Amino acid sequence: MKRIRTIEAKKHIGQTVQLAGWVHNLRRLGGVSFLVLRDGWGMIQAVFEDEMRLSSLSAAGAGLESVIRLEGEIVAFEQAPGGVELRNPDVEIITPVTESPPLSLNKPTIRHPARQAVFRLAAGAMRGFRATLNARGFTEIQSPKMVASATESGANVFQLDYFGRPAYLAQSPQFYKQIMVGVFERVYEVGPVFRAEPHDTTRHTNEYVSLDVEFGFIRDHFEVMALARDVIAGILQELAMSHASDLALIEAAMPEVPDPIPHIHFHDAQQLIFEMHGVDVRGEPDLSPQDERWLGQWAQTEFGSDFLFVTGYPMIKRPFYTHPDPARPEFSNSFDLLFRGTELITGGQRLHLHADYLAALNRAGFSAEPFETYLEAFRYGMPPHGGFAIGLERLLMQLLAAPNLRLVTLFPRDMQRLAP
Amino acid sequence: MKRIRTIEAKKHIGQTVQLAGWVHNLRRLGGVSFLVLRDGWGMIQAVFEDEMRLSSLSAAGAGLESVIRLEGEIVAFEQAPGGVELRNPDVEIITPVTESPPLSLNKPTIRHPARQAVFRLAAGAMRGFRATLNARGFTEIQSPKMVASATESGANVFQLDYFGRPAYLAQSPQFYKQIMVGVFERVYEVGPVFRAEPHDTTRHTNEYVSLDVEFGFIRDHFEVMALARDVIAGILQELAMSHASDLALIEAAMPEVPDPIPHIHFHDAQQLIFEMHGVDVRGEPDLSPQDERWLGQWAQTEFGSDFLFVTGYPMIKRPFYTHPDPARPEFSNSFDLLFRGTELITGGQRLHLHADYLAALNRAGFSAEPFETYLEAFRYGMPPHGGFAIGLERLLMQLLAAPNLRLVTLFPRDMQRLAP
Repeated sequence: MKRIRTIEAKKHIGQTVQLAGWVHNLRRLGGVSFLVLRDGWGMIQAVFEDEMRLSSLSAAGAGLESVIRLEGEIVAFEQAPGGVELRNPDVEIITPVTESPPLSLNKPTIRHPARQAVFRLAAGAMRGFRATLNARGFTEIQSPKMVASATESGANVFQLDYFGRPAYLAQSPQFYKQIMVGVFERVYEVGPVFRAEPHDTTRHTNEYVSLDVEFGFIRDHFEVMALARDVIAGILQELAMSHASDLALIEAAMPEVPDPIPHIHFHDAQQLIFEMHGVDVRGEPDLSPQDERWLGQWAQTEFGSDFLFVTGYPMIKRPFYTHPDPARPEFSNSFDLLFRGTELITGGQRLHLHADYLAALNRAGFSAEPFETYLEAFRYGMPPHGGFAIGLERLLMQLLAAPNLRLVTLFPRDMQRLAP
Repeated sequence: MKRIRTIEAKKHIGQTVQLAGWVHNLRRLGGVSFLVLRDGWGMIQAVFEDEMRLSSLSAAGAGLESVIRLEGEIVAFEQAPGGVELRNPDVEIITPVTESPPLSLNKPTIRHPARQAVFRLAAGAMRGFRATLNARGFTEIQSPKMVASATESGANVFQLDYFGRPAYLAQSPQFYKQIMVGVFERVYEVGPVFRAEPHDTTRHTNEYVSLDVEFGFIRDHFEVMALARDVIAGILQELAMSHASDLALIEAAMPEVPDPIPHIHFHDAQQLIFEMHGVDVRGEPDLSPQDERWLGQWAQTEFGSDFLFVTGYPMIKRPFYTHPDPARPEFSNSFDLLFRGTELITGGQRLHLHADYLAALNRAGFSAEPFETYLEAFRYGMPPHGGFAIGLERLLMQLLAAPNLRLVTLFPRDMQRLAP
């Protein structure tokens, strides 16, 4: 007999089926026992009117989380969770668990199904990301993670021993995706990035999954923003379509994505904050979290939008490869996308001329030498281009209003945690 | 005017369009000039009957690889490559290239279009891999790459400095995918793996992309082999469907994937080699490359198959988490998939009982301590499970008959090369 999944049980009412999974819960109430079976997709309740049917479990000392197989009839029963149950199935033990688990997955406070749902949503987000870009002629790449020089600066990189010489873990695929614009024009990558920041905050970990995009032949950063908007909309659409029950379980408040998303220049944003809140942040080189929250509120009030692009951040606070605003070179052709008052995406137009890179590195006080092999690509014809990056876990955290990034990271890496 | 891609030109015959890309080639023949424009998808020829139209290029000293925009009429012309050309378009320089590139992409020996095709095929292979598994209820995961202990053994791992203590780069997502079988039952991952092997061969690099699969509730390794077969078939189908012209360009000989793929036990394979070739390898713990080639020939002769599963490799040569054959415990429930006489996939059933892991580590001479947090998952109910891994670049190398793995790796990492 072919095994069915718990979530398929409703389609098999009246049939004898086989199910397998973990003993999620087991309660004996008078003569009747209720066993909740959990598999990789959901749960189903099995009812035993004769305790002898459970004797193999008792004999083996097999308790919660034991892996078992059940074979029996699916019965429609409105009071049962999910509307169906398994009546008096045969029980076969696959892997007995005789120790008590360190935590009981069936406690409501553990919210195991919600935790499962989070990581299904992570998979859904990657799917939506790729589908949106594949439909627009993008090519997926996989760039190396062991590199000879750090991407943005020498700080905050993990160093490793590469056959006796130092190497670093890539902080981002920045240069690689730019180089590949010279080949495919439009590229994306989904992969790990590594930041050796000695932070211990709710919003940082030291390794995360970055959804990276880069493409050529743009006029300026507004074309990058238009694509970023479509990518976010594509991700949310995929989640809404394929993960409605996961979203409902987590009670996620799904945003609308306006087209276009409203935008405000950094300079005007600071002026607005001064006028609305009487706090003079004009001339500061960056926005504070409080500034971002105020701007988020303003976008909500003014446009009814959960999203707001802030454009034109001062060059001084952006990485050296950022393209300046030709009209006001102290500002950049870059942007942040704020979602509900917190930064979700950073992106912008990049420099594309070799001479501009040399000048920018010089201005930033970096030696060009460690970047030489990367900069070769800019010597022989690079079109104007730009891109952006989305932190997968950051996206989930903000979307699901999780209080800590670790709750939406599969196996977090932070200053304390390196295993499992 | 909206820009079109070179590969769309045929749909725009008789229309005035805009194209952009790189100057791939430029020849002046008498009064007529031929410019080949390359973009991220293909090429198109532009013909200039009046050299003055190219004066902007000459004035700027802009040569090969300059980035330009062309605007003109698409004309059907049988003799032109691709059957269409652009007649007397306007030329606009986007990024002039005044230096000669270190190599000319237009030389036939460089085979630039074929190199581009390889990496489009890499993207296609990942797409086919994911689609096959998504359709079977698998969940994509992203496991951490910085780990506290090496997966298979202490040897050949890259060590890094993790906030003052040692950490390692993951040799594979092996334990993580196994742990996640306990959550989603069926998982896969596409990501980088790191091997510090001091090899300098045509078939090894020190970082590659691994396509990893793991799933639970199997009877034995034959169910894993059946899935591996479907995954390879799914990848090849996606390539055939979406990348026919890339495959034609590389003159790839696409294999048929029999269903099921024939299989032979390791023990019988050695007996067969002895009988067919008079070479007595019986009792050797592994197959040599020559043995694999002979078996590949046999599969071709006997079954007309490019593929052959060899099952039951001796336990002594497989990693400690391998499940033994219950009937013959010196052999394992593992397999290799040979493709045209070379190993393409390794996989098998894994141990799933905590006590078996402790015994296996002990037998292998490892301390259980570094593995403790991983082994927790096996304490509290793990179903019988198995999986396999495909090296993305290895797959491309064998499929395209490339003489060196580096030719199908985007930015190879080997003992000499760490940049770009």
